[in-house]
Amino acid sequence: MSYKDEQLSEEKVFKDPVHRYVHVKDQVIWDLIGTPEFQRLRRVKQLGTTYLTFHGAEHSRFNHSLGVYEIVRRILLNFENRPNWNNEERLLCLCAALLHDLGHGPFSHSFEKVFKLDHEDFTRKIVLGDTHVKQILLKVSDDFPQKVADVINKTYEDKLVVSLISSQIDADRMDYLQRDAYFTGVSYGHFDMERILRVMRPMEDQVVIKASGMHAVEDYIMSRYQMYWQVYFHPVTRSAEVILSKILHRAKYLYENNYEFALKPTHFLSFFKGDVKLDDYIRLDEPVVLYYFQMWADEEDSILSDLCVRFSNRHLFKYIEFNPNLQMQEWMELYSLFKDVGIDPEYYLVVDSSSDLPYDFYRPGEEEERLPIHLLMPNQELQELSRLSDVVESISGKKRTDHKLYFPQDFIEALPDDSKEKARIFEILFN
Amino acid sequence: MSYKDEQLSEEKVFKDPVHRYVHVKDQVIWDLIGTPEFQRLRRVKQLGTTYLTFHGAEHSRFNHSLGVYEIVRRILLNFENRPNWNNEERLLCLCAALLHDLGHGPFSHSFEKVFKLDHEDFTRKIVLGDTHVKQILLKVSDDFPQKVADVINKTYEDKLVVSLISSQIDADRMDYLQRDAYFTGVSYGHFDMERILRVMRPMEDQVVIKASGMHAVEDYIMSRYQMYWQVYFHPVTRSAEVILSKILHRAKYLYENNYEFALKPTHFLSFFKGDVKLDDYIRLDEPVVLYYFQMWADEEDSILSDLCVRFSNRHLFKYIEFNPNLQMQEWMELYSLFKDVGIDPEYYLVVDSSSDLPYDFYRPGEEEERLPIHLLMPNQELQELSRLSDVVESISGKKRTDHKLYFPQDFIEALPDDSKEKARIFEILFN
Amino acid sequence: MSYKDEQLSEEKVFKDPVHRYVHVKDQVIWDLIGTPEFQRLRRVKQLGTTYLTFHGAEHSRFNHSLGVYEIVRRILLNFENRPNWNNEERLLCLCAALLHDLGHGPFSHSFEKVFKLDHEDFTRKIVLGDTHVKQILLKVSDDFPQKVADVINKTYEDKLVVSLISSQIDADRMDYLQRDAYFTGVSYGHFDMERILRVMRPMEDQVVIKASGMHAVEDYIMSRYQMYWQVYFHPVTRSAEVILSKILHRAKYLYENNYEFALKPTHFLSFFKGDVKLDDYIRLDEPVVLYYFQMWADEEDSILSDLCVRFSNRHLFKYIEFNPNLQMQEWMELYSLFKDVGIDPEYYLVVDSSSDLPYDFYRPGEEEERLPIHLLMPNQELQELSRLSDVVESISGKKRTDHKLYFPQDFIEALPDDSKEKARIFEILFN
Amino acid sequence: MSYKDEQLSEEKVFKDPVHRYVHVKDQVIWDLIGTPEFQRLRRVKQLGTTYLTFHGAEHSRFNHSLGVYEIVRRILLNFENRPNWNNEERLLCLCAALLHDLGHGPFSHSFEKVFKLDHEDFTRKIVLGDTHVKQILLKVSDDFPQKVADVINKTYEDKLVVSLISSQIDADRMDYLQRDAYFTGVSYGHFDMERILRVMRPMEDQVVIKASGMHAVEDYIMSRYQMYWQVYFHPVTRSAEVILSKILHRAKYLYENNYEFALKPTHFLSFFKGDVKLDDYIRLDEPVVLYYFQMWADEEDSILSDLCVRFSNRHLFKYIEFNPNLQMQEWMELYSLFKDVGIDPEYYLVVDSSSDLPYDFYRPGEEEERLPIHLLMPNQELQELSRLSDVVESISGKKRTDHKLYFPQDFIEALPDDSKEKARIFEILFN
Repeated sequence: MSYKDEQLSEEKVFKDPVHRYVHVKDQVIWDLIGTPEFQRLRRVKQLGTTYLTFHGAEHSRFNHSLGVYEIVRRILLNFENRPNWNNEERLLCLCAALLHDLGHGPFSHSFEKVFKLDHEDFTRKIVLGDTHVKQILLKVSDDFPQKVADVINKTYEDKLVVSLISSQIDADRMDYLQRDAYFTGVSYGHFDMERILRVMRPMEDQVVIKASGMHAVEDYIMSRYQMYWQVYFHPVTRSAEVILSKILHRAKYLYENNYEFALKPTHFLSFFKGDVKLDDYIRLDEPVVLYYFQMWADEEDSILSDLCVRFSNRHLFKYIEFNPNLQMQEWMELYSLFKDVGIDPEYYLVVDSSSDLPYDFYRPGEEEERLPIHLLMPNQELQELSRLSDVVESISGKKRTDHKLYFPQDFIEALPDDSKEKARIFEILFN
Repeated sequence: MSYKDEQLSEEKVFKDPVHRYVHVKDQVIWDLIGTPEFQRLRRVKQLGTTYLTFHGAEHSRFNHSLGVYEIVRRILLNFENRPNWNNEERLLCLCAALLHDLGHGPFSHSFEKVFKLDHEDFTRKIVLGDTHVKQILLKVSDDFPQKVADVINKTYEDKLVVSLISSQIDADRMDYLQRDAYFTGVSYGHFDMERILRVMRPMEDQVVIKASGMHAVEDYIMSRYQMYWQVYFHPVTRSAEVILSKILHRAKYLYENNYEFALKPTHFLSFFKGDVKLDDYIRLDEPVVLYYFQMWADEEDSILSDLCVRFSNRHLFKYIEFNPNLQMQEWMELYSLFKDVGIDPEYYLVVDSSSDLPYDFYRPGEEEERLPIHLLMPNQELQELSRLSDVVESISGKKRTDHKLYFPQDFIEALPDDSKEKARIFEILFN
Repeated sequence: MSYKDEQLSEEKVFKDPVHRYVHVKDQVIWDLIGTPEFQRLRRVKQLGTTYLTFHGAEHSRFNHSLGVYEIVRRILLNFENRPNWNNEERLLCLCAALLHDLGHGPFSHSFEKVFKLDHEDFTRKIVLGDTHVKQILLKVSDDFPQKVADVINKTYEDKLVVSLISSQIDADRMDYLQRDAYFTGVSYGHFDMERILRVMRPMEDQVVIKASGMHAVEDYIMSRYQMYWQVYFHPVTRSAEVILSKILHRAKYLYENNYEFALKPTHFLSFFKGDVKLDDYIRLDEPVVLYYFQMWADEEDSILSDLCVRFSNRHLFKYIEFNPNLQMQEWMELYSLFKDVGIDPEYYLVVDSSSDLPYDFYRPGEEEERLPIHLLMPNQELQELSRLSDVVESISGKKRTDHKLYFPQDFIEALPDDSKEKARIFEILFN
Repeated sequence: MSYKDEQLSEEKVFKDPVHRYVHVKDQVIWDLIGTPEFQRLRRVKQLGTTYLTFHGAEHSRFNHSLGVYEIVRRILLNFENRPNWNNEERLLCLCAALLHDLGHGPFSHSFEKVFKLDHEDFTRKIVLGDTHVKQILLKVSDDFPQKVADVINKTYEDKLVVSLISSQIDADRMDYLQRDAYFTGVSYGHFDMERILRVMRPMEDQVVIKASGMHAVEDYIMSRYQMYWQVYFHPVTRSAEVILSKILHRAKYLYENNYEFALKPTHFLSFFKGDVKLDDYIRLDEPVVLYYFQMWADEEDSILSDLCVRFSNRHLFKYIEFNPNLQMQEWMELYSLFKDVGIDPEYYLVVDSSSDLPYDFYRPGEEEERLPIHLLMPNQELQELSRLSDVVESISGKKRTDHKLYFPQDFIEALPDDSKEKARIFEILFN
């Protein structure tokens, strides 16, 4: 029997709080889960700094990756009768689902921004590079690693396969909404996935939804909308991320300016230099980052040290609503005032903006094209979701942006009471 | 207003997946949560290596500590009318609940065993030592830190206060059973806490349970029993712990034998020397341990390196049932065989035994006295629980022990096929 | 101690699957629950014919009434510090909550339409008439029954009290959405009530919501929207209601035309005559109606008999989308065709239309004024919800109507295969 | 295609709050659900009078029957590869599961006791008699109705088939424990059914459980134990049942003594005469019974009238612990005292005893033989559950009996205050 058809002698199950059980029967999947690259995902939190706002959100990407795999597995059970759907194709979907987040590093968002990296790039490198994962995929067939990479990369020719992992109603989103709701404990994020799975229909190059399931999909879109604004873009989480980014900026700056670190930042060197090899990337997991933050808290540089202490002890920045476009003048005045009182505004006066497009219809040619969700009408025609749903229409294509200004209120309060600058800073911030 | 009576201008709430919300109104509690010592608990997993068996079990002791606080807060709402129960006493209960696990280090069980430490000792040191926590407690009153330490230490004179945190049906157990069930996703661990809280009655020196609540308590005891055997003593979790302990043993051994570590094990030195200062202890959080394991995976010493790779990649030991008392001869033979084939049995042939006493009536003078659960009968008499409940009686005072033998099956399989030793080892292990 | 302040010696609790426990401490509430008029609500289903679509929906109005009471009880705990809020006012809220649905009869919707009754009218009559409920309320104070009636009637002067029971975010709606979701098993209907209760603030004449709770309220509005279209207006439920109405119509028609019933319809006489006394109304509970349907299934009149058999055996009408305004001609043709083949269209060709306004801002003077939901902004101003929420705005004030045509497909299929009418009917219905 | 292999063109699903969805694909099953005999189960409550204690327990046997069917359907999915397991056998299991409770009447327990009926008898009669159900089963094959009856009757030759529906861990029990827990809202009744289904293994003549699933089964047995004592045998429920039985006794007595009923008890005549035809039985559903109780509340006979008022208004008897075996003398004295003061002890002084055997090993020849649960050990041997589980052992074969004495406390309180008998009755009852 070829490797791709090998089945475990007994099905293995993982107890999963969200999907009850994750079932594994394919030897390939079992072997992939056992690779060091996949096990590394246990050391990367799914929601970055969110655990500092919602203490339950301590779950890892390992958790989520198994969940996405399980959802795809269930979808495929429903598609079993699709013609021309062979076992390798099935396995391709499962592997892509399992591995789609493999390239995520710790606190991806901040790291990607500061060091100009792209986790999708690293996912590809892990799938195609000199890794245990690649070795296992190769055993399926010579071009299997490339196929898996293509699916994750959305360039695979069978767009139906791609859409299971990457579309506006894919296994990825369906897992993380439910999982993140479960671990944070919020009451959003629930929708009737079992029903959605049952009304999914494979069409030529996409998965469509039987019209009778429209309300379940509406509910899913609303969950997504609520999770974004209630959890993912929570201002306290963003405060922690602001600090994290500033730590990385400062460390890089110090390195570039030949600062003598008490502990040589070995793991970070290639990041500072802008030439990150796969192996460097893999070694920089979350515990390593936190280890450095502990060490840097004792560094002589007061900015680096202060920011690391803040992060470790959750001593975060405060924030106010602040639109830098409309409030340019206040911004400039604050910048000068901070400088005058010796609080470096580069690190301590930060605007952060978040925005989301909870659902979008197709606008070809736009920056980030999003395939719309199509409903399959009783007459077999397809209709785009927002045409039928007022609720979805109301949030379609509307980018909502939220600006906040972050700053260390404790520093400002610690200024002498007779300081003119203190008075003026307070006046601008809190009036 | 004195500090102990200070209330936050607006109640703060933490979203908690187990208790829905954790409510904080006292300034003291709020300040304690903000200390570095308490925030450190975010970097210590509640269930040690259990996440390698149940992937959901990635929650921290921070999580659990808030939960215990919340349960005690709810119990106290019911006790409000108890005479002589002043606000300082109330605060004492809440602080002790919040801080009771403060001294836990990473993977406590293994660290305590290998380095002969006691986390309760460190809890006391944090409460009474030169810490932020102590500073805050002192603001309540001069003897408040000592009182908090006494409650956690079970030596406080008012045994009723002690019993809220440490008894066979205390807030600690009620939180962890539910929380660990929630995060692992197992279906055990549920019981009707709301009912138990309502039938709790403060008596002179203990909390008793109205007889009408007996079945809810039975259900709780059974949850406890199931969680122990299904989750806490899961053999795969113990396999990871065996490896972890052996890593620590090996590192200590190497240090004592003047091995030259590529990375100087700064954080571990005082542990190796057996003289752990509070500050050393606090710095050794879980990310730091995992950082070292990553570094040690590259050490020259092949045992240390192998064990660290195993732990990081979840490449665990296999196990079989094995009772060392009854199977001494096999054990000795295996020991020799392992030696003969070059697998050091000190590190690679490990018996681990777990045992639990899910409920016990009072046996004064015994090693670890456990106060029994008393039911308050309609005639106002007290009856010990196991006298009334067949189910509880069936598991009372019965220590159940489970022995397993752990070993690296991959090493044995890798022995040459014509090796006599290999054949014999297999024969002993799998017949 | 006056009756209104009397407390039970021990708090009573009802186990409730939705709110966990319903707590009763006031003697008045306990006594009201024990009245025959309140116990009667056990014999009236909360969702009428919905159990024929969602088999779980067999819960009664008794169930729901306790739930509304419990929610108001919890809201009042948060309002305890409101000045001028005395115990009688508190009790008034609780009684109105408990009793607000007292006048509901079996299958209210159909009975009200066919016999031109109004359940609110009967609620008033029970509260103010010669009933056990009235006797108990009188013991509180002479004008207490009238006050309770006024609150339920929305004419009570303190509009804040009214708004707890009747507004767009009242205890009634919050209970039924959750309860109906629980019993039907649908995944809609969940929202974070605990949070909503915590952000409710009593203002002069209304309850407003702190702006920070906007998303929880959005979620509630969406639940409402989904429950209406997925559960309350389900076309199968409406099919059963169509049959039910037609049974009542037929029985009334027969009575008016001096048909000789095998069983004299004693319980229905006053309904047929249009002069329903309170006592008649109370006696006509759901089991009585079902008893008559069983008996009428054996009546000689074939229409009455057929409809009763259909209802009892859930042999319902089929339906298609059909807009009588746009399809007047088809409608007329069908009407004739039905007549021609001997299927009385008065009973067997029924258009049913449902429409809902899930949320509406205030339009004074309109038929059914709805008070809008106001958010309390950080600057203490009030803002109407749909101004701040795109999602709510998208469904505000938009009446959505759904028309269906119901008919007995089995009758049509049973027509001779060579019948021209059959062919034409099928053509109109299914093309 | 033969009828037994006919599949619906599209799978039908019922939304079920316990199992999420109930799936129907077989035409036979769909047709059976549509029969009047099966639809009648909507008019029989699953838990009789329990809704008077737990207001959520208003669910019907229709509900439960679908659930049992669904569980068997899921079990069979796992057994698909069993040799010699053809489609008719599969259908047999499903039909027996669906129909096993078909013969239940309203408040079965009381009716069976008072009128000496047996619901299993009527189930057989419905399956084999002149019914719609029989007609459908006949279309499968001539002997199919008999086979279905045999399975339900436990006399079918393939004991494996029987054991799915009737054993100590069958689909029936697994459904009702979960369902009754869900609707009452109690926290007992939960166990990991998904795991139990996965460790079930079909053996020659029984279903056995893989030893690794022992704890899940323990948990199930404990659920059963808790549900019995917390819900099924709740003394308040039994109080309602005592009244119900006494109503039936009284009505029968009056009939036998030629009492002139204001309303002729047509539906009850054959019950009074002890010759209940199938058609009489089927017509006596719960609404009919409640209709009669309403009518009888107005009867002249004061005992019948009083008891019916009590039942309708939930004006139940009070109770105390009372062991008639040990307290014979008190009993006799009470009996006389009741007579003396004019409260007929036949109807108003009732001892009710409940007892349960939550799990039993096999004791051949005993009255009600129960097949034990067998665990399949790794060495392929079978072990009886209670040999391996202390917890199960503790409750095995131990019949626990609970005696209560029921009486109308209001009647006794209404006796003149100077009545010697009143004083003495109170003394006996409450000392």
